[in-house]
Amino acid sequence: MNKKIKIGLFGFGCVGQGLYRVLSQAQHIQAEIVKIGVKDLSKPRTLPAHLFTGNAAEILDDPSVDVVVELISDAEAAYDIVTTSLKRGKHVVTANKKMVAAHLPELVALQEEYGASLLYEASSCGSIPIIRTLEEYYDNELLHEVKGIFNGSSNFILSKIFNENLSYATALKQAQGLGFAEADPTLDIGGYDSRSKLAIIAAHAFGIFVHPEEIFCYGIDNLKQQDIDFAKENNFKIRLVARAQKRAAGSINLSVIPQFVKSTDKFYSVENEYNAVLVEAAFSDQQAFIGKGAGGNPTGSAVLSDISALTYDYRYEYKKKSKAAGLSYSTDQLLEVYIRTNSALPELGLVPGWESSHFNGGSYIKGKILLSRLLNIKQALQQAGAFVATFSEAEAINAESKTADTKTVVII
Amino acid sequence: MNKKIKIGLFGFGCVGQGLYRVLSQAQHIQAEIVKIGVKDLSKPRTLPAHLFTGNAAEILDDPSVDVVVELISDAEAAYDIVTTSLKRGKHVVTANKKMVAAHLPELVALQEEYGASLLYEASSCGSIPIIRTLEEYYDNELLHEVKGIFNGSSNFILSKIFNENLSYATALKQAQGLGFAEADPTLDIGGYDSRSKLAIIAAHAFGIFVHPEEIFCYGIDNLKQQDIDFAKENNFKIRLVARAQKRAAGSINLSVIPQFVKSTDKFYSVENEYNAVLVEAAFSDQQAFIGKGAGGNPTGSAVLSDISALTYDYRYEYKKKSKAAGLSYSTDQLLEVYIRTNSALPELGLVPGWESSHFNGGSYIKGKILLSRLLNIKQALQQAGAFVATFSEAEAINAESKTADTKTVVII
Repeated sequence: MNKKIKIGLFGFGCVGQGLYRVLSQAQHIQAEIVKIGVKDLSKPRTLPAHLFTGNAAEILDDPSVDVVVELISDAEAAYDIVTTSLKRGKHVVTANKKMVAAHLPELVALQEEYGASLLYEASSCGSIPIIRTLEEYYDNELLHEVKGIFNGSSNFILSKIFNENLSYATALKQAQGLGFAEADPTLDIGGYDSRSKLAIIAAHAFGIFVHPEEIFCYGIDNLKQQDIDFAKENNFKIRLVARAQKRAAGSINLSVIPQFVKSTDKFYSVENEYNAVLVEAAFSDQQAFIGKGAGGNPTGSAVLSDISALTYDYRYEYKKKSKAAGLSYSTDQLLEVYIRTNSALPELGLVPGWESSHFNGGSYIKGKILLSRLLNIKQALQQAGAFVATFSEAEAINAESKTADTKTVVII
Repeated sequence: MNKKIKIGLFGFGCVGQGLYRVLSQAQHIQAEIVKIGVKDLSKPRTLPAHLFTGNAAEILDDPSVDVVVELISDAEAAYDIVTTSLKRGKHVVTANKKMVAAHLPELVALQEEYGASLLYEASSCGSIPIIRTLEEYYDNELLHEVKGIFNGSSNFILSKIFNENLSYATALKQAQGLGFAEADPTLDIGGYDSRSKLAIIAAHAFGIFVHPEEIFCYGIDNLKQQDIDFAKENNFKIRLVARAQKRAAGSINLSVIPQFVKSTDKFYSVENEYNAVLVEAAFSDQQAFIGKGAGGNPTGSAVLSDISALTYDYRYEYKKKSKAAGLSYSTDQLLEVYIRTNSALPELGLVPGWESSHFNGGSYIKGKILLSRLLNIKQALQQAGAFVATFSEAEAINAESKTADTKTVVII
């Protein structure tokens, strides 16, 4: 594509507005926004009315539109826009992690079938170029692990709690006031946003496609003062950590779980709306990528890079998809966890055989559990108001080795 | 390239040996080492003798060798190997920053003329995928600044001095013992290694090609206890920082200078052999990339990624080269510096007009100076045993604004 590309934009919030401004001023990016699709055409706008339309077809049916940039929050409407665009051979840039994660295999197939390119760097970890880096740089054979703080809103809340002694409720309100958290913060604090990003990142890191709903995810919404006190007494902070790990046997474990982190942990100093991704590979050891993960500009930054890449005909090649033949998703992973419930623990059936040395007046329990079991009892844990967290010093132990460690292991 | 690529390797030190081991075990990387060129054929080897040759032509003249991996330390011999290989249409992976930086325009031209690809991620910042990221992800129009700790050896020494109160000499010896510094450490501690990397990074960040010798570079070799005391009294650490900055007028300033960093600075916590790169762009704000910068494995990691990329026909496109028409290299930048000499400062002619409030018994002076002036007086500074450092809180001020700030500015 060497001509100036014509963009049809859906959504005109702060990212869309910033994007329009930058593209109008940019001399070298060969791209211009020719039409903007919005839900509410009657809203006052800073740009001429002829640029806007309330009718998606006006963009999707226009053969002169080369690229569709989708920046709306409604995942279902986004799915319609993106799939229709791809089927008409239009390249697409989207920031919608929920939509991408839920439909990834289909979106890959559509790209192949219709020859259009779908880029979504903005969907994962704000301004950190993690998808492009995984896609272009890291070979899956050398990759051991990709983990990170993938959600800026919940990290902002956790930072305020630990650094400024704010209550959970006050910290959440601050996050919402600054635009880092939605009015309904469930996706952020429940870990679902991180889980969608993890599914996308796992596809580009290891070539495996796992539907988000198959991934265990536990948020920070049940975090109580007792948990904060436990963390502080032990010199921990809490971070919401998403993790994709390759096991020796060729299986990939995926999870989103709060984690107690020590001051020596790389995540300890990642504060506020920042995201961090740690990539561990055979030779390179640990690489850290740190950047802003919430707010309009980080998203805008990633969208811009994707648009710029389209001017060079860039597309994800999903190179690892075919290589991943030997890799499979597995929940057969042993984790060392802390579980604190409002009701008594025995009701959950968690006690027998667990390490009881850390049992503290019935308020919390510390022990080992299989990831698959956590997935099964998630609803019961949530109903009991349980807060669940892993320990940073406890490297996840391969379930295969549990026979050597039977004293501290029970599969409940 | 879909067949298994055949690699001719030059150099069989720890990186070469690790590379051979990984490639022998890897099932998915379609590459094998078929011949290894070494200087000393009589050295005992762990591999069969028929793999080795003391005659470079045996590799360079062999039409079945697709890719040459050059891992020798001699920059001149490396230049011959690399240019000969490119001229014969062989793709090349090299880790030799000095050679790449000194000959970059010619190496780009050779790639264009002969259609062969030259990759050198391993030349810059160890395992951090910075060249690939700059090349593929960041548009130069949006990039403001790329700066970093580019040399693991000098950072290791500075860390030991500040964290363990080691003397400069002891820290240097430790770095050499661990293989982080060469027997002749001049390139590392003199800043020349960082300077070569900065020249390469500037080409991929901004599309400008500047010969390393045109870039001001001042190392840590004159660091004395007084300087360490000054830093500690002011709660600073010292880091050797390489920096490429775009100015409003379209000029690019480049420098390698020790810097006093405060605890709030991102570089403060980058310790030992780690490298860090901070990329600042219009929308994304500051991105940090942190990874190991010295030792064999980080280099091996980058070499492996480049080999893997060649199996997909990857090549640098130097996209920003043509875009950089409006950008030019400039030393017209005002810096706030600390200068401490062994001999009295007036002998250097630095005193008149400088801020004298920080003058301390003649031992050091603090003030503003043009980068171009530093370049001119570098030899005199070195002869006077001067230690030079910039301040992290003093954002470099555009020289254009110096008329507004005449009281603290003198161009000596």
